[in-house]
Amino acid sequence: MAHGIDPLDLAKALIAVPSVTPATGAVFDVLESALTPLGFTVERFIDGIEPDGPVENLLAVRPGKGPVHFGFAGHVDVVPPGVGWSGDAFVPEVRGESLYGRGAVDMKGAIAAFVAAAAVTPPEAGTISLIITGDEEGPAAFGTRALIEHMDARGVRPDMILVGEPTSAQRLGDTVKIGRRGSVNIWIDVPGTQGHVAYPHLADNPIPKLVRILAAIDTVTLDEGTEWFQPSNIEFTDIDVGNGATNVIPASARARLSIRFNDQHQGAELIQMIERIAHDVEPGAKVVGKISGEAFLTPPGELSSLIAEAIHAETDLLPELSTTGGTSDARFLHAICPVVEFGLTNATMHKLDEAVAVEDLHQLTAIYHGILMRAFL
Amino acid sequence: MAHGIDPLDLAKALIAVPSVTPATGAVFDVLESALTPLGFTVERFIDGIEPDGPVENLLAVRPGKGPVHFGFAGHVDVVPPGVGWSGDAFVPEVRGESLYGRGAVDMKGAIAAFVAAAAVTPPEAGTISLIITGDEEGPAAFGTRALIEHMDARGVRPDMILVGEPTSAQRLGDTVKIGRRGSVNIWIDVPGTQGHVAYPHLADNPIPKLVRILAAIDTVTLDEGTEWFQPSNIEFTDIDVGNGATNVIPASARARLSIRFNDQHQGAELIQMIERIAHDVEPGAKVVGKISGEAFLTPPGELSSLIAEAIHAETDLLPELSTTGGTSDARFLHAICPVVEFGLTNATMHKLDEAVAVEDLHQLTAIYHGILMRAFL
Repeated sequence: MAHGIDPLDLAKALIAVPSVTPATGAVFDVLESALTPLGFTVERFIDGIEPDGPVENLLAVRPGKGPVHFGFAGHVDVVPPGVGWSGDAFVPEVRGESLYGRGAVDMKGAIAAFVAAAAVTPPEAGTISLIITGDEEGPAAFGTRALIEHMDARGVRPDMILVGEPTSAQRLGDTVKIGRRGSVNIWIDVPGTQGHVAYPHLADNPIPKLVRILAAIDTVTLDEGTEWFQPSNIEFTDIDVGNGATNVIPASARARLSIRFNDQHQGAELIQMIERIAHDVEPGAKVVGKISGEAFLTPPGELSSLIAEAIHAETDLLPELSTTGGTSDARFLHAICPVVEFGLTNATMHKLDEAVAVEDLHQLTAIYHGILMRAFL
Repeated sequence: MAHGIDPLDLAKALIAVPSVTPATGAVFDVLESALTPLGFTVERFIDGIEPDGPVENLLAVRPGKGPVHFGFAGHVDVVPPGVGWSGDAFVPEVRGESLYGRGAVDMKGAIAAFVAAAAVTPPEAGTISLIITGDEEGPAAFGTRALIEHMDARGVRPDMILVGEPTSAQRLGDTVKIGRRGSVNIWIDVPGTQGHVAYPHLADNPIPKLVRILAAIDTVTLDEGTEWFQPSNIEFTDIDVGNGATNVIPASARARLSIRFNDQHQGAELIQMIERIAHDVEPGAKVVGKISGEAFLTPPGELSSLIAEAIHAETDLLPELSTTGGTSDARFLHAICPVVEFGLTNATMHKLDEAVAVEDLHQLTAIYHGILMRAFL
């Protein structure tokens, strides 16, 4: 190939640019320099205001002749390195069989592999887009969401999207994510009337009410899980009264909970349910919810099949189709078209000495190439 | 009388010395100057170390010929004035029919009235002690407790003690306290294992356990009250988890409760009960209690009768024998002999513009004198 790309070299070049979330300029320069010679039209734009912005994003499109438009989504920002690395987190280094550096698996390595795969895919076979944000690890308010608006305005509409998050668990290819649980945080504020513990009849203690509300929530079973999802789950994450005085009945009490829910539920419905339970005990309770993302599922079908076939061809593995774990930007992209996530092993993501096996980089390049060729068939 | 004392003058002199808890030197000087000419032997001593000390205390004894030894207990420290007084909290001022100043009712006014009552009581009638601390409003660790040790060492043993706390509610003489509830604070710590809310099976959330413990405690009825006491009461006063991260299951959760209990209970027994409930839910829960004071009752008898008679003679009121409200130093003195509390009206105690009716000061002096004469009969 005229523009053959070594995924190891590109991964190193991306890691060498510190891009702790939100990523800016330099790391996008590296990516743009790799994509332009491959025939991609690269657009970069900055969106959003304080405190969750501004954020830089990149959209690269290489129009093909075939009817299929394949999208690859990812991010060039990384979480902070933390203290205690064996080497420098931003000086990529191959030691033994692995490449070390922040972002090696989450997810500069996967971006490098996809660019290398695109480089060996005939441009005429089909249209390829790269949808790359500089803020996936942060608030993500002006990252992939802004890219979706941008694509919409430009008429860029992939038929399917692969998100390159590190989904593999033990071995490259063992796990593909076809959905994600939704996530909502809910705050319950119970008002009361402050007073002295010696005169409780002159006060109204909010704590027993909050306890009754939480005890009622504790008995709720949201569902038993589905074919593709584990059961939805409620976790209490905080209670805060903030009363330092031992002889004072406090004026208010607050709790916070996090619900991770499958596609049997919607965030708003769950907030309403918690509100009903709270109001049964104390009509004056205030319930506020913030939906991080709705659950979504791309039911097993064309996209997951061709990904599984490409994985099997290279690794002999039959990937598990999973919906476990936290949220990802797939929750936004799902609104456009079928979305599946597949990438490197996640054992070292967000940890010290994040590393990817060099062999995995090459194998992932081959798998991504296999996916593209199957998608364009 | 050779040494007649105007309770208004003495109250003013005491108020004019700012003695925010713990009281030191100057306010005791004023009291000592009033007592010495009356034939009292005054001992002052300082006890205790940081952080709850040092504390100054005063013991004054005037030996009589009669067999009865009458003790009067009180404190010369006051709570901070706060902001917003009409005048200066430490410049005593008679406006209209009242004397204004911090300590007017709690309880420099009562001390002045008792000293004035002692001044008009024949020394030979019986032995009188004044047991006065500089720390009743603070930690009270080295106040009345130290005085009791001091009296014990000196062989000073009253047959009955009157505590001059402001027990009157609407009118001087309407209420006498013959007991006080006990008080215990209890902390419950529930351990857990921190983790990510997306992977609850790898964590152990302490909050639902704490909620179950508190819900169980919430169903406890300690008693229905007694002839002399209202029902014992449990109040939750704080819950603290201190987890700022919405996606984190916390490592521990803590609650605090306050129990005000009548003489059907003892502090240690209540701590054990809470511990049993906590351990039923989570054997690893840590329960720590701190007993502020045990409940006590001086059953209606000689002391309350002679106080009631003296009140009735001066005011025509039949005082209610009550055990309501917070704790007082009577909880310590009860170990020596029968203790009853009676003093000025408490409407303005601990408040802005604390004030006592000048007429009440004179009437209380007459009542205290009537009590002494009846005790010495």
